[in-house]
Amino acid sequence: MPFDADELAARLQAVRLRMVAADLDALVVVDPANIHYLTGYDAWSFYMPQLLLVTHDEEPVLALRSMDAHGAHRTARLPASRILGYPETWVHQPDRHPFAWIVDALRERGLVRAGRVGYEAEAHFLTVRSFLAMQRAAPEWTLVDAEQLVNWVRLVKSPAELERMRAAGRVCTAAMLAGFDAIRPGMGQHELAAVVAHAQAMGVDGVAGDYPAIVPMLPTGEAADTPHMTYSGRVLEAGEAVSFEIAGVSERYHAPLARTVSLGRPMRELQALADVTAAGLDLVLDGMRPGRTLAEVHALWQEHLRAAGYEKASRLGYSIGIGYPPDWGEHTVSIRGDDDTVLAPGMTLHVIAGMWMTGFGCELSESVAIAEGGVELLTHVPRELVVR
Amino acid sequence: MPFDADELAARLQAVRLRMVAADLDALVVVDPANIHYLTGYDAWSFYMPQLLLVTHDEEPVLALRSMDAHGAHRTARLPASRILGYPETWVHQPDRHPFAWIVDALRERGLVRAGRVGYEAEAHFLTVRSFLAMQRAAPEWTLVDAEQLVNWVRLVKSPAELERMRAAGRVCTAAMLAGFDAIRPGMGQHELAAVVAHAQAMGVDGVAGDYPAIVPMLPTGEAADTPHMTYSGRVLEAGEAVSFEIAGVSERYHAPLARTVSLGRPMRELQALADVTAAGLDLVLDGMRPGRTLAEVHALWQEHLRAAGYEKASRLGYSIGIGYPPDWGEHTVSIRGDDDTVLAPGMTLHVIAGMWMTGFGCELSESVAIAEGGVELLTHVPRELVVR
Repeated sequence: MPFDADELAARLQAVRLRMVAADLDALVVVDPANIHYLTGYDAWSFYMPQLLLVTHDEEPVLALRSMDAHGAHRTARLPASRILGYPETWVHQPDRHPFAWIVDALRERGLVRAGRVGYEAEAHFLTVRSFLAMQRAAPEWTLVDAEQLVNWVRLVKSPAELERMRAAGRVCTAAMLAGFDAIRPGMGQHELAAVVAHAQAMGVDGVAGDYPAIVPMLPTGEAADTPHMTYSGRVLEAGEAVSFEIAGVSERYHAPLARTVSLGRPMRELQALADVTAAGLDLVLDGMRPGRTLAEVHALWQEHLRAAGYEKASRLGYSIGIGYPPDWGEHTVSIRGDDDTVLAPGMTLHVIAGMWMTGFGCELSESVAIAEGGVELLTHVPRELVVR
Repeated sequence: MPFDADELAARLQAVRLRMVAADLDALVVVDPANIHYLTGYDAWSFYMPQLLLVTHDEEPVLALRSMDAHGAHRTARLPASRILGYPETWVHQPDRHPFAWIVDALRERGLVRAGRVGYEAEAHFLTVRSFLAMQRAAPEWTLVDAEQLVNWVRLVKSPAELERMRAAGRVCTAAMLAGFDAIRPGMGQHELAAVVAHAQAMGVDGVAGDYPAIVPMLPTGEAADTPHMTYSGRVLEAGEAVSFEIAGVSERYHAPLARTVSLGRPMRELQALADVTAAGLDLVLDGMRPGRTLAEVHALWQEHLRAAGYEKASRLGYSIGIGYPPDWGEHTVSIRGDDDTVLAPGMTLHVIAGMWMTGFGCELSESVAIAEGGVELLTHVPRELVVR
């Protein structure tokens, strides 16, 4: 358990304060990153229905599939009495849903009381069927979209969390450099992914790697005009560029990083794009300091791009921390024109300049922590276009 | 594109037949495995709202985030006119949702017509907010839970799909044997995971590895009484047993496999459990042939276990094929007492005997295809408890 009881208690307290502000009597948490944040629970069980119920006056209750409940005490800082397991006979059945079992079990413990109950309407693992089953089983509950209530509490990291983010950054640096060492024309994308995946798990300097929420993404050649392409057996060819986007992970905390590698002399338009992007990222990182809004930071970038004759519609970054598949973003702040969040020490962001043109593209990013004086880089990889 | 246009057309036709049977005028598909099955589309874009609309009389329409739509033609066998991208300004906004944009775009194309429209209520990436936004934006649609409509079409594999499953099995065999070669007391779990992850991506004999829907799971020592524990920096100790569960993947098709490794002489109770499990699995595999029901197969296992003095509450396996995080199961048939599905040639299953006791456990499995005469093994790893 990487965090002590006091830290978990402080997190829970912060969540309850937000629940008061939102007039919520209880909160149903499903996002595995939020469950991990509040309890330490960590296992690949989130593909089955599970939830954490947070109330104001009692310890949270974790309810999940019985086979997973059996060993949940190994990672969750909760007493056995607060871990409930639904029977196997409720798994994948057309006529009954585990959330109905869970609500009944909570009711037996006096935890289903009339009131406003928040749920995470945009969480990936709260299925519509889970939601409808909960709604039917708990008519006392007025279900309210709590939006990203717990995610917002996660926005500013504690000193212990910042240590994890730095460790994740070291793993990421090592994995990216391992990729640079290995890449060559004639190699399959999957062979490059193998090298990176190995380095991500191995970690570095006594930091064990943990699994990334997203696998190595390697948009290559013309396909680099689109992000989020994963790897295949396609062979890398001389003259192509590869956009690498990977993360280093330490105990579920993620530090992502993107770099672009040109296999041989880059096309002139790619080099020009990469130069503009790098200069813009320098400018942005220099401008990120406590007190500035994300919209102000974004404006620096937009002005720079406009002057250079480029455009980028997508946001320039987002908050990072704990990640579970399918995403390492925290789903709160974004670096874009309409986000007036004020930067504060302890925030951690992935600042990513992904320039997806037509038939080519480049990606360049940094994972950073906001410190008193400006940004602290979490990763340490040279920022220029890499030529191999 | 691993499958030709005829094969995709046949899949679509099979889905439409089931839509007729379910009295559906249209179907909203969100499960990335189902979208891949019907179009070939493949990218790590499913963490953002996206859907495929299937109607009876027109080509399907894929709607997703604009940056992903831009390159979707590289994997999706759809004309550009059937790929829609919602603007970046709709991403992560509290006051508007991409599904509203998508419904409007579909309406402009005449595709939002009054009728019964199926949706996947238990799909992981159809969030409650997506569902509610769709419901509000398309009042003409009577939304009906289509359950696992497309998943059921996937149950029986085509000859081309069976080739992919065999390729996945070869990758899995290589990755499991790489793990056996590397494992030793004193090694961190993450170091073992690194070796396995490397082998999973490298593939074998000309088959490129693709990324697995689930990372290597390595429940170790006492924690092996629970499945789904992922890896950490914990050091493997002499005398402990490790339950490995991994998959080999070829072009999104998964062949999973579980084995148990004892680091040194196994405890007597583990060896006894492993022997009973192995004999039971032999019996079950021998009993799996076309015409038998899954409940009948399960009864063979239950009788064997009961005679040996053990119990297992969880199912003995499930259908496999295309997988995306967080699951490689197809969510249709299960090997358990209440599943009367009749085995037929072309079905592929992961038969997994996971015996989770208290303070120890063992896992043993095979990925198989049902052939005319019985099972075809997709993986080739000796079935006894491995001692290292």
